[in-house]
Amino acid sequence: MSVFQRREFFAGTTALAAAAAAALISTRQAEGGDPSFMNNVPDPEVSGSELPTFKFALDKSKGKVIGNSYGKEATVTQLPISKGLAGVSMQIEPGAMRELHWHATAAEWAFVLEGQVRTTVIAPDGTAETNDFKPGDVWFFPRGHGHVLECLGNKPARFILIFDNGYFSEFGTFSITDWLGHTPKALLAKNFGLPESAFEGFPKEEVYFARGEVPPAQQSTPLQGWKKPKLTHKYEMMKQPPHRVFAGGREWRADSTNFPISTTVTGVVLELEPGALRELHWHPTADEWHYVITGNISVTMFGSHGRYRTEMLEKGDVGYIPQGYGHSIENVGSTPCRILIGFNTGVYQTIDLAQWIAGNPVDILATNFSKPAALFQKFPKRDVFVAGENGPDK
Amino acid sequence: MSVFQRREFFAGTTALAAAAAAALISTRQAEGGDPSFMNNVPDPEVSGSELPTFKFALDKSKGKVIGNSYGKEATVTQLPISKGLAGVSMQIEPGAMRELHWHATAAEWAFVLEGQVRTTVIAPDGTAETNDFKPGDVWFFPRGHGHVLECLGNKPARFILIFDNGYFSEFGTFSITDWLGHTPKALLAKNFGLPESAFEGFPKEEVYFARGEVPPAQQSTPLQGWKKPKLTHKYEMMKQPPHRVFAGGREWRADSTNFPISTTVTGVVLELEPGALRELHWHPTADEWHYVITGNISVTMFGSHGRYRTEMLEKGDVGYIPQGYGHSIENVGSTPCRILIGFNTGVYQTIDLAQWIAGNPVDILATNFSKPAALFQKFPKRDVFVAGENGPDK
Amino acid sequence: MSVFQRREFFAGTTALAAAAAAALISTRQAEGGDPSFMNNVPDPEVSGSELPTFKFALDKSKGKVIGNSYGKEATVTQLPISKGLAGVSMQIEPGAMRELHWHATAAEWAFVLEGQVRTTVIAPDGTAETNDFKPGDVWFFPRGHGHVLECLGNKPARFILIFDNGYFSEFGTFSITDWLGHTPKALLAKNFGLPESAFEGFPKEEVYFARGEVPPAQQSTPLQGWKKPKLTHKYEMMKQPPHRVFAGGREWRADSTNFPISTTVTGVVLELEPGALRELHWHPTADEWHYVITGNISVTMFGSHGRYRTEMLEKGDVGYIPQGYGHSIENVGSTPCRILIGFNTGVYQTIDLAQWIAGNPVDILATNFSKPAALFQKFPKRDVFVAGENGPDK
Repeated sequence: MSVFQRREFFAGTTALAAAAAAALISTRQAEGGDPSFMNNVPDPEVSGSELPTFKFALDKSKGKVIGNSYGKEATVTQLPISKGLAGVSMQIEPGAMRELHWHATAAEWAFVLEGQVRTTVIAPDGTAETNDFKPGDVWFFPRGHGHVLECLGNKPARFILIFDNGYFSEFGTFSITDWLGHTPKALLAKNFGLPESAFEGFPKEEVYFARGEVPPAQQSTPLQGWKKPKLTHKYEMMKQPPHRVFAGGREWRADSTNFPISTTVTGVVLELEPGALRELHWHPTADEWHYVITGNISVTMFGSHGRYRTEMLEKGDVGYIPQGYGHSIENVGSTPCRILIGFNTGVYQTIDLAQWIAGNPVDILATNFSKPAALFQKFPKRDVFVAGENGPDK
Repeated sequence: MSVFQRREFFAGTTALAAAAAAALISTRQAEGGDPSFMNNVPDPEVSGSELPTFKFALDKSKGKVIGNSYGKEATVTQLPISKGLAGVSMQIEPGAMRELHWHATAAEWAFVLEGQVRTTVIAPDGTAETNDFKPGDVWFFPRGHGHVLECLGNKPARFILIFDNGYFSEFGTFSITDWLGHTPKALLAKNFGLPESAFEGFPKEEVYFARGEVPPAQQSTPLQGWKKPKLTHKYEMMKQPPHRVFAGGREWRADSTNFPISTTVTGVVLELEPGALRELHWHPTADEWHYVITGNISVTMFGSHGRYRTEMLEKGDVGYIPQGYGHSIENVGSTPCRILIGFNTGVYQTIDLAQWIAGNPVDILATNFSKPAALFQKFPKRDVFVAGENGPDK
Repeated sequence: MSVFQRREFFAGTTALAAAAAAALISTRQAEGGDPSFMNNVPDPEVSGSELPTFKFALDKSKGKVIGNSYGKEATVTQLPISKGLAGVSMQIEPGAMRELHWHATAAEWAFVLEGQVRTTVIAPDGTAETNDFKPGDVWFFPRGHGHVLECLGNKPARFILIFDNGYFSEFGTFSITDWLGHTPKALLAKNFGLPESAFEGFPKEEVYFARGEVPPAQQSTPLQGWKKPKLTHKYEMMKQPPHRVFAGGREWRADSTNFPISTTVTGVVLELEPGALRELHWHPTADEWHYVITGNISVTMFGSHGRYRTEMLEKGDVGYIPQGYGHSIENVGSTPCRILIGFNTGVYQTIDLAQWIAGNPVDILATNFSKPAALFQKFPKRDVFVAGENGPDK
């Protein structure tokens, strides 16, 4: 919910507005990280005299392959600058599943590229949800919630996972076969009130990608029956009209305002026409993670102290921008590009250069740049967001 | 704005429900730690190729002894894995007190085992509270609040302290005699508007356990008179009916819902009958600290990557499970056992293995374990929590 | 409390007060830092066997000088103990400005000492605010919000900046000339829909202090017109009556209750008469940063384990007290002193020694100090806060 929407809720009651606003202000601080501590210690990866690379060719990396299923990851091991977010490019073949598992140190946000996925996720309150996903749909699983991912149908499912922790490795998750395989049968028998023989033949090591029947088209009822959570884990992002439309592109956005369970991740799909530019900007409360779905882009990054770096990213590449660093994204290819972007906050915030300049009078700009004031009258008088040959926001 | 002022703001209104719900969603993030930062950096103690020990024989350790009073502690020094919580086993003899002190870096949660304790605690708003505690009662002092612990009556008082910081050492607290003993008399005289001679003979070093008269049965009025806080620091946990009752045991729980001041610690007493098992489970938002009050238990811990470890704990031993790690607790003795458990969160959350499995349909389980679907129809269709010979939850 | 339980609370609206209070309680935790994590790891600067210095002669340091403008800073580089807060002493000469810039890792709080300052600040929601400041006024800019500082009129402006991050260096900020100077003209042209020639002659390196016309007396309209934020960035602190008045001094305070945008910093001006003492006390939720505006003070610091240190500070010196450390401030000069104090929290909390003692009965104090109970009847029966020859609080 945006500050603006929140305020609408409060129309009417007077004293309330003040009190609730105060509460929400500090609440938002928590959502964006505790500002009295976070980022206090400089990151050696980005505080040196030169900016390090912020690009990694994810889909060209090796990853873990089992049959026709695979997972390829970008963590601080592959891309040292990416301390705040990690990502995985995964394919699951028909009849396979990414087995029941959880992540002790990361929440999971996902975007489906191809095929269909069925997920089942458990919450601490005992509710469970099963959802089917098509391309353009997203899911969010809070940190530590157990889940399983199945390929639906006869075509492989491909999707991108984003984690709110750059140190998190998908290959260090807690998998149910790994756990049960190392637990004595006597303990399992007692746990479930079954004879030890019930556990004979269970896998002894982590299965990771399990294989069996293609799941039924209709969702199967869980053992406990349907007991659904209040907040859904699914959002059909690309079925929505774009959040913003420009001559040069369009943006879809999923954050805690339209996908309430996603309190620690915001996801964006940005489409840019050839030559279009997501203008120079920065995010005051979040790191940013890119995955190029299609196209060729040029990403610039500004890191203060005269440090500036440009990287060319193509389909399957990953990029990363630390919190507060200036950057831009330009479609330098001849076809439209589509970029998946993740932020480690549930409350999206951006400050765009044109907006910033438009918030200042020309006399300030004249002095700042030692140029005549008249020049700055020609500058955009509002946010541009996406620029390009066809001009700004329609 | 104080809680009191805030409450006034909220007197009778309607749109409030939505606003408060929104606040609570993001508030939960803060309660469970800031997920965009916490645990981002892997802990070398638990990310190695083998799990380290998670057991320490607290009551057999040496600690600090003065007369018939003592304090024995488990911090990262004694038990390196225990980064999130520390604990102390303390005894105070009749006529002695743990002198006025505060902790700069930890809140304190306590459970009384034997004897009686009187505490007096100051809050930043100037309110003070004096409470008397019997076995089974608990207290909570927020980080930095000054307090004193007195033994009441003619028998030694024994209790367990739990701190929400594994680096915190009880022996590095800020004690009033240590402070005043190093402050020039002239400054003290000015501070209190008294002649310097008033401070002659004051202790020059930290007293730690002070000794004098046995406190009066009736609580003495503070110098400022009674000026009590809105939220009490005392909760009679074991006088409540158990939170949950099972054939194999019972659980008492004190968290921020029934003990509102305890926003950063949840405390649990778990009783298990011989052979009973607190089933395989994990906590997505908190580390866990154990102290065995009576009995003999076997604790298992699963740490992903095939890492699995079992420790046998007896009376007076401490155990520790990092956030998100799978574990179980089994009474392997011939008598009922009682375990004190602390979590570094005010909002308790658990995901139990039987509950997780019950949230999935049999076709998923069949594929995951490569076993016939019919087998999983025999599994519990709900949360087990405590298992054992007498079966699950009554 | 689970989401499910919480929602039950919200049915109807009666139990709401309780729920909202609970939300606010935990919200305050976030404001004061996440207590389940913050300060968990001991700070080597202050955990050694002796307390390090906590004083730095800021105004005597070299800093960055351009013409008659300068910035001098105190960060962990100059004062290693000051991990939680940094500060800058800045002067801007007439016709100069601290150019448009932002801070990726710190919010900025400021107090004007001499002259006049005009600030213009942009927020992520596109609102911008221009404010004029005179001596005694303060501003607050949240982390990452772009801003500019201009000297107004014909006299230099002097002010103190306080940042909620001791690692933050003013000389590592993100300046607009540095950014645009390193961005290819073609990209700038596309960004703003202007010909490349529009950017000819723009500065190629960071300007830092830009110089030009003295700003007009009347605030100029921004390019986008006036589009003001809901919460102002300005507070006329010294135009308010003092927060508290004592025989020995007076205190002004700006925190999130009277200056709502300042959620991560509290600022205080403390005036002490000659000989007056801000009594022994500590802050359970914040670090403290001092700047001596006028006068000579003696600051004591107590760090547990018998560690105690006194520093003499004069005009232009900086002091620092870590969270939870005991300390006092005494005017040891012959004239009144004025001290600017910053805390890295929007919610001020203090526990004063006299208040703490007054919250205890004499029998506890007698035992604690091994002195007769009657002695403690002479102690103050309430908070002293400021002590001195003229006695406590009027």
